[in-house]
Formats: sequence, C-alpha cells, structure tokens
Amino acid sequence: MAKKISMAVIRRLPKYYRYLKELLDKDVNRISSKELSQIIGFTASQIRQDLNNFGGFGQQGYGYNVAELYNEIGKILGLNKEYNTILIGAGNLGQAIANYSGFQKSGFKMKAIFDINPRIIGLKIKDIEVLDIDILEEYVKENNIHIAVICTPKEKAQQIADVLVKSGIRGIWNFAPVDLHLPEHVVVENVHLTESLYTLSYLLNENEEATK
Amino acid sequence: MAKKISMAVIRRLPKYYRYLKELLDKDVNRISSKELSQIIGFTASQIRQDLNNFGGFGQQGYGYNVAELYNEIGKILGLNKEYNTILIGAGNLGQAIANYSGFQKSGFKMKAIFDINPRIIGLKIKDIEVLDIDILEEYVKENNIHIAVICTPKEKAQQIADVLVKSGIRGIWNFAPVDLHLPEHVVVENVHLTESLYTLSYLLNENEEATK
Repeated sequence: MAKKISMAVIRRLPKYYRYLKELLDKDVNRISSKELSQIIGFTASQIRQDLNNFGGFGQQGYGYNVAELYNEIGKILGLNKEYNTILIGAGNLGQAIANYSGFQKSGFKMKAIFDINPRIIGLKIKDIEVLDIDILEEYVKENNIHIAVICTPKEKAQQIADVLVKSGIRGIWNFAPVDLHLPEHVVVENVHLTESLYTLSYLLNENEEATK
Repeated sequence: MAKKISMAVIRRLPKYYRYLKELLDKDVNRISSKELSQIIGFTASQIRQDLNNFGGFGQQGYGYNVAELYNEIGKILGLNKEYNTILIGAGNLGQAIANYSGFQKSGFKMKAIFDINPRIIGLKIKDIEVLDIDILEEYVKENNIHIAVICTPKEKAQQIADVLVKSGIRGIWNFAPVDLHLPEHVVVENVHLTESLYTLSYLLNENEEATK
C-alpha cells in the first residue's frame, strides 16, 4: 500500500465495516453502491471513490459482494491480526475499557493493566492482572505488546508515553486529555471525551439559536 | 451567531480552550498567535482565521489576552451555562462516564442514571440514583434535562433515542456503536470507541509498512 490514504477516508473505513457486518448478519449477499449509500449516508460516488483507494472491489452491474468487501476492509484495517494490548491507569474509565468484551472479540487482547496504586496492584480486574507501573518498560519489551491504552490523569500521560516509546511500543490509544509528543514511528489515536462533550454543548446552543 | 461555523472549526475550539486553561494556570497573561501556534500545533494563520469567525479577540502588536480569550471561547462553547444531564445504561462504561468528575466541574450535572436491570434500579452510583428505564420519558419532561448520554447496547440505542426525542431532549451524547436517526432539532455527538480503535489499528499497520 504505497499510496498515502487521507485521514478522512481512513475514518470512514470502520463505518463501512460496521454496516457491512450488519448486512452480513441479515444474510445480504450483495449490495450496490447506491443501496449502501442509502444505509450508510455517504453518497454512492463517495463510496466508490473511497473503495477505489484500495483497488475497487465492486463489479459493474453486480455491486459489491458483502462478505468479500467486509473481509477486505477488515484486512485493510488490520483486523485479521491479533494485537497484544495493555492499559495504563485502572480508574473508572480504564477499568471500563479494559473490560469491554468487544475489543477482545476484534482481536485486541488485553494482557495486563498497570497502575501506581499499591492497593490494587496484584489484584485482578475480571481476568486481567493489575501490575506495578514500575515494571511497565520491562513488561512491554518482554511480552510483544503492540498497543498501549493510556487512561492516566493528564499530568502523567506524557511521562508514561515516554516509557512506552522507550520500550518499543508502536501504537497508543490515548484517553488522557493531552496531546502527546511522540516520535514518527509511533502512532496515536486520541479519544478526548471532554472535547467531545464541549462540541456537543456548542452544537446544542447553536441549534437552539437556529430553531428558536 | 447567524453564520454557520464549519465542524472543523468547532472541533478545534475545545482544544483552544484546553491550551488556554493551561496558559492561565501558568499565569501567562497574553500570547501572540505565533506563540499559541507553537504550543497548539495549528499554524498562526489558522488560529487567526478560526478566531475571526467569532469576531477576532486579538489586538495587533499585543496578541491575545489569555483570560479574555479563554472566557470568550468558553461562552462560544456554551460552558458558561449548566446542563442537566442523564445517562442511560449503567454498564462499565456508563458508570465510568457518570462518575467522571471533570464533567461535573464543567457544568454538566449528572442528575440520574437509567437502567433496565432490576438488580441495580434503586441503588446509588456514587451520589447518583439509578432509576427504572420505564420512567425515562416522564423524568426528562419533569426535570428540565438538557443532555442525555446513551451507553446502552447498540440494539437498544435507537429505541431509547426515540423516547428521549419524544420527551423533548435537545442533545444526545451517544456511545452506542450505531448512527442514530434523529429529527433536526436534536443534536448528537458520537463517541464510537470501536471505530477509534480500528483507526488506530489501520494507522499502526500503515506506519509499520512505511517505516519497515
């Protein structure tokens, strides 16, 4: 995949994947870009354009084979692999994410949770061990960890990220409300909940103005 | 605010707000768009353009007054108001979000949690009562609720949204992995965690290809 795909296209791929799964579950075998457009809400030409980035998949006059397209998008998203995952910060949000069974089913295996609090180190949260943050670097190096989820307070997040980078991690899913500074070979995907809530607050007020 | 602001600008506002808060906490009184650019990572011209949507705020040769800009962006985001908030679906994620103190501090008051499970209805999660989903419509109507957070399984989310719309809600923060169908006077902000994780997985693989 030599061509650099735009983030806008990339962010649409999981949505295609989700809708295709629903179609599969309803035993739909094939679908035209027009029909897909009606379900997913993108235009048919947008859909064709998006999928052409990866070589097309559709057949003139036939449309898309749902199972094939689902599998291909899964592969493009890297969901045909397994990812050893750890989580740092066993607060409410951290525990909720560590326990989310959907991730396990998708191939993201939660191997350990790290925390600084001696009262919970050594416990298990569901079946996942809570380990001492002091052994984070060593653990990542020795256990072939692909993805780290940061759920620490914002003050600790960069420091943890630095340790993770040193230990060779390549992907960070960051829930701390900071923008991490990372070298180019490490990718990060942020979930900034507060920013999302503030966006909702903006939209709510804008919409009330507009529909007053 | 007659002019329709683009979503890209709106999504940058919470980030300005976050960085300005950090500057305030460090007792920085004023800042140029160039300095702000170095901290926040947008270009100085982007920053000036973004803020010009709302009337500017900067003064030639002086820059921005940090406290003033922080307050103004807060007002634009609607953070000078309080929002009565409820949450539906007291699973792990729902409980974590209901308990997140940052939201309470920002003016989002969590008034009640609704669930379908009789074993937890009537309990309190921290100080928030868990109520029966059957009284949702009545409760929203009678308690001036502004925002509902949906943390139900995907199969229930649209049904709950329909009840919320009927009860007069104007804003939905949706964590269920579905796209809700809502009338125009109701705004929605989605947090699709699985899609975010899949995006990370894509980026991880793309980046490994690129840096091999």
